[in-house]
Formats: sequence, C-alpha cells, structure tokens
Amino acid sequence: MPRTRGGVDGNGDRARAGVDLNSDVGEGFGPWRMGDDAAMLDIVTTANIACGFHAGDPLIMARTVAMAVERGVRVGAHPGYNDLWGYGRRRVSGDAPADIATMVLYQVGALSAIAAREGCVLSHVKLHGALSNVAAEDEELAAAIGAAIRDTDPRLAWLVPAGSAMVAVGERLGVRTVSEVFADRGYDSSGNLLPRSQPGALVDDPAAVARRAVRMVREGMVSASGTDVPLRAESICVHGDTRGAVELASAVRRALEGAALAVRPFAT
Amino acid sequence: MPRTRGGVDGNGDRARAGVDLNSDVGEGFGPWRMGDDAAMLDIVTTANIACGFHAGDPLIMARTVAMAVERGVRVGAHPGYNDLWGYGRRRVSGDAPADIATMVLYQVGALSAIAAREGCVLSHVKLHGALSNVAAEDEELAAAIGAAIRDTDPRLAWLVPAGSAMVAVGERLGVRTVSEVFADRGYDSSGNLLPRSQPGALVDDPAAVARRAVRMVREGMVSASGTDVPLRAESICVHGDTRGAVELASAVRRALEGAALAVRPFAT
Amino acid sequence: MPRTRGGVDGNGDRARAGVDLNSDVGEGFGPWRMGDDAAMLDIVTTANIACGFHAGDPLIMARTVAMAVERGVRVGAHPGYNDLWGYGRRRVSGDAPADIATMVLYQVGALSAIAAREGCVLSHVKLHGALSNVAAEDEELAAAIGAAIRDTDPRLAWLVPAGSAMVAVGERLGVRTVSEVFADRGYDSSGNLLPRSQPGALVDDPAAVARRAVRMVREGMVSASGTDVPLRAESICVHGDTRGAVELASAVRRALEGAALAVRPFAT
Amino acid sequence: MPRTRGGVDGNGDRARAGVDLNSDVGEGFGPWRMGDDAAMLDIVTTANIACGFHAGDPLIMARTVAMAVERGVRVGAHPGYNDLWGYGRRRVSGDAPADIATMVLYQVGALSAIAAREGCVLSHVKLHGALSNVAAEDEELAAAIGAAIRDTDPRLAWLVPAGSAMVAVGERLGVRTVSEVFADRGYDSSGNLLPRSQPGALVDDPAAVARRAVRMVREGMVSASGTDVPLRAESICVHGDTRGAVELASAVRRALEGAALAVRPFAT
Repeated sequence: MPRTRGGVDGNGDRARAGVDLNSDVGEGFGPWRMGDDAAMLDIVTTANIACGFHAGDPLIMARTVAMAVERGVRVGAHPGYNDLWGYGRRRVSGDAPADIATMVLYQVGALSAIAAREGCVLSHVKLHGALSNVAAEDEELAAAIGAAIRDTDPRLAWLVPAGSAMVAVGERLGVRTVSEVFADRGYDSSGNLLPRSQPGALVDDPAAVARRAVRMVREGMVSASGTDVPLRAESICVHGDTRGAVELASAVRRALEGAALAVRPFAT
Repeated sequence: MPRTRGGVDGNGDRARAGVDLNSDVGEGFGPWRMGDDAAMLDIVTTANIACGFHAGDPLIMARTVAMAVERGVRVGAHPGYNDLWGYGRRRVSGDAPADIATMVLYQVGALSAIAAREGCVLSHVKLHGALSNVAAEDEELAAAIGAAIRDTDPRLAWLVPAGSAMVAVGERLGVRTVSEVFADRGYDSSGNLLPRSQPGALVDDPAAVARRAVRMVREGMVSASGTDVPLRAESICVHGDTRGAVELASAVRRALEGAALAVRPFAT
Repeated sequence: MPRTRGGVDGNGDRARAGVDLNSDVGEGFGPWRMGDDAAMLDIVTTANIACGFHAGDPLIMARTVAMAVERGVRVGAHPGYNDLWGYGRRRVSGDAPADIATMVLYQVGALSAIAAREGCVLSHVKLHGALSNVAAEDEELAAAIGAAIRDTDPRLAWLVPAGSAMVAVGERLGVRTVSEVFADRGYDSSGNLLPRSQPGALVDDPAAVARRAVRMVREGMVSASGTDVPLRAESICVHGDTRGAVELASAVRRALEGAALAVRPFAT
Repeated sequence: MPRTRGGVDGNGDRARAGVDLNSDVGEGFGPWRMGDDAAMLDIVTTANIACGFHAGDPLIMARTVAMAVERGVRVGAHPGYNDLWGYGRRRVSGDAPADIATMVLYQVGALSAIAAREGCVLSHVKLHGALSNVAAEDEELAAAIGAAIRDTDPRLAWLVPAGSAMVAVGERLGVRTVSEVFADRGYDSSGNLLPRSQPGALVDDPAAVARRAVRMVREGMVSASGTDVPLRAESICVHGDTRGAVELASAVRRALEGAALAVRPFAT
C-alpha cells in the first residue's frame, strides 16, 4: 500500500491539524449509476465502496477501486444488508448478530480480493445505511461485526459515526475506530444526528456547511440548538448523489484547505 | 494451512498411487438444502464450496467450511454464473471474459475471508456448471479466469475437467491444474464426456462405477465405446444430491481403498 | 370457476358442520424444493401458493397450480416480503403501507395470470411469514393490503389468523375474511398464538393435535392454560415441511372426517 | 379503458395516415433510475413498462402506469429475462420455450394487476432485449410466448420488430402484431437491423432521423445501403436514456406532425 498521497501527508503535514474526507461510492448496480463517482474521487481522501449487497457489483467494484487507486484515494469496504431493492436502507430483523457479521465478512472478503488485484490493500470498513444504524444502537451486533473485521485483517480500521456505541466496542476489541461527522446534518445536544424529519436536520447553505466543517475539525465542536457539543471529527462524510452535492463537497474541501487544515486520509 | 491430514499423506503414502475425491457442497440457499453435505464430507478429501452466485450464501458457506475443516477435508471455491434461479446451469452470454473473471474473483475472495476465519486457507478453485462448460470451450475465457485465480493467490490450484482446454491454459499461466474425472459418466474416444442425452452417458451400476474409478486411477485409462482412452485422473468427482448418490460415492471410496490406492487430498 | 368439488360440497354437505384444510405450497425456488407438495395437495382442500418473493418462481407456481387443479384443491396467493434469502421470515421495516400493498398486488397478479392459464380463478390471498405477522399488528398496513386485495378482484377472500386485526379490517373494507387456526400450536387466553419460544407453543402428539382440531371446529373453542378460549375456526392450517408433518396433516383430516365433520374448501 | 386520447383518434383522424410512437419506460430498480420517463411519456403514445425481471419493481411499475394514464398514453408489458444485473441484455440459454413463456406470463400478470388498480387495461406486450432477439430468431420460442400472450388476454397486441418471425407467428396464432421500426438505426437489405458494431448502424443526426421516420410511415420504405427496402412501420420506437435521446424523440414527433401524419396509439 502506498504510504503517501501527493505531498499531503509528509512529515510536516502530520503535525498539522487535519481531517479525512470520505464518500460512499460504487453504489450503482448493473446498468444503473448512483451519483458522480469520478467527481467525488477527485475531492475525497477515502472511499467507501459498496460490495454487492445493497448496491455495487463485481464490475463496478473493480472499476471504482481502479479509479480510487489512480487518484491516491484510500479504499475501504461499505457492506450493507442484502437488500438491493431497498438499497440497504430498510431494517431487516431476525438474523443473529453472528450471522450478520458473517454477511459483513463475505462482502469485505469479496472487495478485498478485487482490490488486491488492483494492488490495493483495504484500509477500513464502514457499515451502510440501516445496518450502520442498527449497529450504532445494538452493542451485541456491533461487537460481532467488530470481531469479524478484526479477524479478517487486524490492520483494518472501522469508520464509525462519531459518538456511537461502535467507538467503545472498537476500543474494547482492539479495532481502531475513526470517527465520522456530517457537516451538512444537524446534531442534538447528545451529539447524535437529528432525524431527517426534524427541523434543522439538514443544512443546505454551502457557506454554513463549510463553516461547520472547519469548526468541527479545528475545535471538535458542533453547535446544537444553541449549545456547543463536543464531537470527535476524524473524517467528514460527503455525498455525491446530486450535482449540488458534488459542489458542496468541493466547497467543504476548499474551506478546510483555506483554513490551513490538512485534508488527508486517516490511513497512514 | 495444515500440511497433513491424519496419517493419509505421510511419506510412505505419497509414494503410493492414489487419488483425490472431490464433491460440490454448500449448494443450498437461505432455507433450502441440496444433498447431504455432512455425509459427503465424511467420504471425500476435497470440498468445492458454492460462493453465493449459483447457490450458497454467507451462512451456508461458513457452516460448510467449518464442517470440512472439522473432518480435515480441503476446501476450495466453486464459483458460478450469477444465476440463482437457474442454479448456474444456464449459459449466460454477453459478458467480456475479463468481466467474468472479476465475478470469479469476487466469489473466491468472499469464500477466502470466510474460510480464513475458520483457520482455513483455500486450496483451489473449481468452476461450476455452465461457467465450467463455457470455459472448457472458450480459451480466452479460460485464460482470463486462470489469471484471476493466479492473481488472487498463487498457491491456488485449479480443479478442471481432465483433457479440457483449461489444462493447457493453466500450464501456460503457471497455475497448477488438477485433472478431474467422473467415474459414473461415459467418455467419448477423445476423452470428452458424452452428453447426458446419449446412450452410455450415465453409468449407474455401483460395481461398474467402482471398477471404472479404480482403473482410471491405476491405469489412467477409461473405456470408451470399446477402445481404451487415456485420461489423467488426479481427482474423482462424486455427488451427493440423492441418497443413492451418497452410497455410490461411498462405494467408490471403498473400492479405491480395497485396491490399495490412497485416497488423499491433491493439496499437500 | 368450478363451483363444486366432487360431491364434497353438495347441498346436504353444506348443512353439515365442516372446515377447510389449507397448506402453504410451492415454496421451493429454482432447483430447490420445500416439503412434499404432492402429498399435501392430496390432503388439503385449499392451497396457498408462494408467488416468487419469499419463495416460488413462475415454473414452480405453474406446476403447483396444475397439481392443485388436478386434485380439485382451491388455489390462492401466498405473497410475502421480497426476501428470498430470509424466506420472508425477517421483518423488513421502512416501506409505506401503500407500497407494501403494491408489492402484494404484484404477486397476486402474477399468480392470477398463471392460474388463469390453468383454467383456475384464485379464491383468496393469505399473507406469508413476517408480512402476516406485521399486518396482524399494524392496522394501517392491514387496511392497505385489504384494499389492494379488494381492488384486484372483489371475489377474493382473505385467509387470516383467527382473532387478528385483519378480521375487523376485512369487515370494514367489505373483504370476506376466513379465519385460520393452527391445531398444532398453543394459544394464550386472548386467542393469540403463543410465541414459539414459550412452553406449550408446539403440540406434537398427533392424537392431541387431532383432538384439538375436532374441538376447534365443533365447539369453536381451544384450551389455553386451563381455560377455554373461543376461536373461529373456518380453516385449519397444516404443514408439509417434514415427513412427520405430512402424517400429522393426514391424521387431522382423518380425525375430522371420523367426527363426521365435512372437510371442504371455504370457497364455494 | 378510455377509447380516445384527446382528439387524436377521432373518426377523421383514423382515416389519415399515422403512426404510433412507443418507448420503454419504468426501467429503474429500487433507488436507481433509467432515463427521463416523464419527458418520454409527454412525447409517446404507447409505453412499454418493465415488469421487475430485467428492470422495474412494483413501486416503479405503479408510478409509471399512473404517469402514463394521466397523459392518455397506452400501457403494455415489457417482460425480459430474469437478469437484473445484466439488464436483460444477456442471452440466457437452457430453458424450454414453454418455461420462458411462463416467465412472460408471470410478468404480464403482475403488471396487469397493477395497471387494473389504476383503471388501465394493458394494450400489448413487447419483449425486452435479449429475450426479444432470441424470440425473433427462434420460432418455437416465439410461438410459445405468442400463445401465452393470447391465453392471458385475447385483446393483447404484440409489439414486434418489423419483419421478424414474430409477425408470422402472431398471424398463425391469432395474436394481432404491431410492427415496430427504429428511425435511428440502420437496416440491411433484408429489412433487419444492422448490428451495432457495423458502420451505419446508428443514425445520430436528428434531421436525418426525423426524415427517415417520416419516410418509413408515409412510404413504408427505408433506405439500406443505397437501395430502398420495404418496412411495415406501425409504431416507431424512441428512447429516453439520455438528454439527447429525449430531444431526438421530440424531433421525430414534430417531424411526423409537420408532415401531417397522425401520431396516435395503435390500440384503439
């Protein structure tokens, strides 16, 4: 695995405050595309690649890994429920935690082999959609998945929602977690994301999003209904589903760099 | 990877003439089962495990690997077309060889990760159904798949039909091939399997099947419409779909052992 | 639609007390089979046929309808969640009731066309697995599905768990419901099925099951932890997953007939 | 089913020369979209709706039917191989013609029920992709599918490639066929489409496409490598996959109307 990406993470740079930018990519299937992966891979430092269960297929996976490698973007697996129709956004109840962990393992292994052929070692795993939401609440499931990640490859990091139960679970299991924040989403005073249905859940003014991103990284704080809430921001998640989203991601990157913050992969 | 299996392949044993017995297992899906995997894993020395495309799912894969490891049976991947409904028996045309190789890689990688958690390194790949039939005829496809196998793990063997184009392709690519024969199937004078529709295509008398197996291994010969045809028999494929099939497999094993031939995995 | 089935429901017979026997059939997929459909269709008067979402495929559907028609067994649709892997037993959350109703409509329509070619008009719809369980609790979902059934064909009956919310919903919507009971399952004092994890949830003594079936039909009563609970038994559900299950179903039928109760389809 | 659409097919109009415009729509799946269905449904008179096998799902089907009905566009089924990944473009070999016909029946029935709820009776069936290509060559398959269409509903028309074997098959079976042409595709001197790999296979100049469309309808002729080839043009197929494609479709419609040709559904 290449240890540097451009001049971004040279010695001087690691000393500087900085942050990773990550995006979910390769989320098409067969003839269908989702978002503009090429544009996003020009912006981010870390890519989470769908593994064929909620989206993605072997061919899209291979193409997306190649595009990421070409740009020096780090690559991780983005496993989800086996629910193509529902895009992994529906909760599927009734499986034992150990069985869900095996489904995660299957997906990570599949991507791992495809990445290896491109000369790329996976840096991490990030759960998708409903699976991530359930694991954030269900510590037994989080532990089963964390163990599966560790057993696959002890070098794999686990990209998790900041403040979620997965942080403690990772620590307990000896899996390095990387805390992810959303600059375009509102948080409550406990540091959890506001549900999309609530006012303030979505921030769509690019300038506001960019300001929030800078503050999250520099101060480790987000403003939540008037108070300041601490938040560990090791990676900022940006989306590429729409034209506007790509521009927003680009604005976040420019704002971080303009604030003299290093934008660099968390994986060293 | 454990290098010995019981006392079977000690020094003295490797000197003896012998053969591997392989079977396709783990070919259920979700709530459905196919054949009696436990019974077959008691008989064979090598297992080809379905990887979720034509059959198999992560849970069945994990259970089947565990059952094989428990019995000291060697484990390989059995990838097929992404055609659950058709059980991988239908030819699916229109994909580029390189893309089909990527589909194979996905499946091998997925099983590989699941096997690794069980402390098991895959010994080989054997193509399933229509994919195997197409690759046996289409050298370009065989070469693309062979390269994918080699790039995944250079230690992987390729279990292929005796006399097929894959043997030469493997040699050219530096992938070890292991030649598989069918004691219960008729061959033509070129050493190819007779189509199932032709008379003599299926041998169902257990004593005849057992005699053929012994002769294939001891003499490297099969009788085809009166003449003797040379056939490289490194592994004999046995099936477990029906009660009778399990008994036939058992009869083949007993006959080989009765003839002082070693039944041992090809993977050392 | 033929209005009579052998001599079973002649004038005299309808006057007699009686009951329908139903079973879920056609629950294989592609190469896989589930249970012994032929044996069950020899026993029951009504068949619920899987429609391709949790199990079943067009070919199995056509074969199963033909087998039912041949035996004079009435045919209905057995739609479930689109979850082949989980066999429709996992709850899938996040879809709007109207959307789930559309998924039901799709399945009923598909079977309806296949049945029509066999000269058979569907008599009813019975929800499968987790979808049935959710609809039994969620009145909004039940109403959306009930309306979809009515709009497809006003002659369709709705085979529902006795005492479930679907009975009232059907009445309100003008959909005829038929109440289904399980002779081999324990009930609580409110007339609900005991969860499988509780003691007494499963009755496996064939004589006891047969006695319970007769009492349910003759008296409309089931014994639940010492007290008698009224239960509307218009149809008894029997299963064919295992050899023992087929024999149990057969024992139930013999007991009913031995008690001079008519075993006849609810659809006239 | 409403028998008129605006003033288009009044008495006077039917006397005029005219043509149908058809497009394949509803070809998304789950979260994914394909083309701009709303724009295409504003242009065409007949819509072919994917039925969930190569594309489409119950929810997309219902929405697309509703959009078509709203605009007075006639609705038909667009069944394909059960190959979501390959978008129905890969040939899948090994199924008996009768079994493929049953798969078609399943899809037509599913859409039929969904359409019925929208107050819409299906006017026709048009095969998709590889299934259409195979049926155009394989008369036995064409006959099996034609019989399935007729048995589903004798009022269903069969929208088929002009000059294909399906025309004669339909005539023999008593299924009305409607001949479809492509104004943006080159034809050979036998009236067959040139393979996409050949020069002249694709016509991309909008003015040329529009001129060809008018000539096909007015003269029943297409120019093929210098000679004029007769071609029955009852419906022109237009695509909406790309922005340019929608504009091309619009240009074709304007050219036809500018040439005083009626653009009206074939279904009366």
